[in-house]
Amino acid sequence: MSPNKCLNLLLMFEQLFTSIARVVTLTEEEKAYCRSRFVPKKLRKRQYLLQEGDVCKYTVFVEKGLLRSFIVDDKGNEHILQFAFEGWWMADLYSFFTEEPSPYHMDAIEDSELLMIDQESWENLLNQVTVMERYFRILIQNNLIATQRRLMGTMSETAEEKYIKLTENFPEFIQRVPQHMIASYLGMTRETLSRTRSHMAQKKGG
Amino acid sequence: MSPNKCLNLLLMFEQLFTSIARVVTLTEEEKAYCRSRFVPKKLRKRQYLLQEGDVCKYTVFVEKGLLRSFIVDDKGNEHILQFAFEGWWMADLYSFFTEEPSPYHMDAIEDSELLMIDQESWENLLNQVTVMERYFRILIQNNLIATQRRLMGTMSETAEEKYIKLTENFPEFIQRVPQHMIASYLGMTRETLSRTRSHMAQKKGG
Repeated sequence: MSPNKCLNLLLMFEQLFTSIARVVTLTEEEKAYCRSRFVPKKLRKRQYLLQEGDVCKYTVFVEKGLLRSFIVDDKGNEHILQFAFEGWWMADLYSFFTEEPSPYHMDAIEDSELLMIDQESWENLLNQVTVMERYFRILIQNNLIATQRRLMGTMSETAEEKYIKLTENFPEFIQRVPQHMIASYLGMTRETLSRTRSHMAQKKGG
Repeated sequence: MSPNKCLNLLLMFEQLFTSIARVVTLTEEEKAYCRSRFVPKKLRKRQYLLQEGDVCKYTVFVEKGLLRSFIVDDKGNEHILQFAFEGWWMADLYSFFTEEPSPYHMDAIEDSELLMIDQESWENLLNQVTVMERYFRILIQNNLIATQRRLMGTMSETAEEKYIKLTENFPEFIQRVPQHMIASYLGMTRETLSRTRSHMAQKKGG
């Protein structure tokens, strides 16, 4: 590996360690063990990381770029489960742990750089670096809390309420994610999203 | 405490330990520590464990009975987030950890017996009995997987598909949960649920 590639790889891990350091403290030895367990990967925009029916072999950390996971229903409509920006994780945990085929697709919305860990390495990591158990518990817990609130929102909120919440909680979404994907994530048609946005702009103007 | 009450309390913990033993192994010393951290509580049918706007002070393990958590929207409609049968856990984790008011109500659908742990005891338990970190990580992970699938189902499935999945995955629901609560859980009106059931019965009959 060239010195520049080496430097780039080390910088990718620094972003991972910054994310981990917000929750737990790793020793230098534990960081070295982490470095030995992840492999880097680049994805071009629109390239797939996982396709429905395949086993999700990796849990990935997004160092750069933007991923999404989604299902495609019988009518061919996409329903987006999650986006993952820099510093976020993505996996179908059920498929990852059971090795059953996944119902989800995952692809890159922008050119992306990832750190990936397979199941065996993940188990080894948690056994060797026990604070990582806490890190992942808290990460998964935060994801559960957000998913529960989104589920309740899906069942009880109007299109406008959903859109306002999204822009307040994740202003980056609106900048970086195409409108038709925002509509799919919010569970509404493009037309409804477009009407909602004009209506809000009118209210602001008046 | 009378000998019979003592025996009853010890039996409650046996059910908790059976649930934990499916995931991790506790030593006798660790079990003793667990016993010192939980407090028992009985709830009568329809009694509240938590009301919207209150802080969720306890994570509870259901030893007997059936709980639900739900939100009430601006129009007064109930939307059910979760049920918890024997051997399941319930909490609003966000409120539990942050001490912010909860958006959820929790009440008992049947007379219930619970083991409750507060936040300080929970943190102490995880520090003292480190395998419990793994236990809760796996528990929360399974809850996340189920909640993600339910969210995708809410966005992509017909009423009939939703109802069939529920009866297949949780046949107990249909026996023990009133119809109007099943409708609320599935995000449909009572009338839609009733039509779906008749339609399915007709197909079965034909």
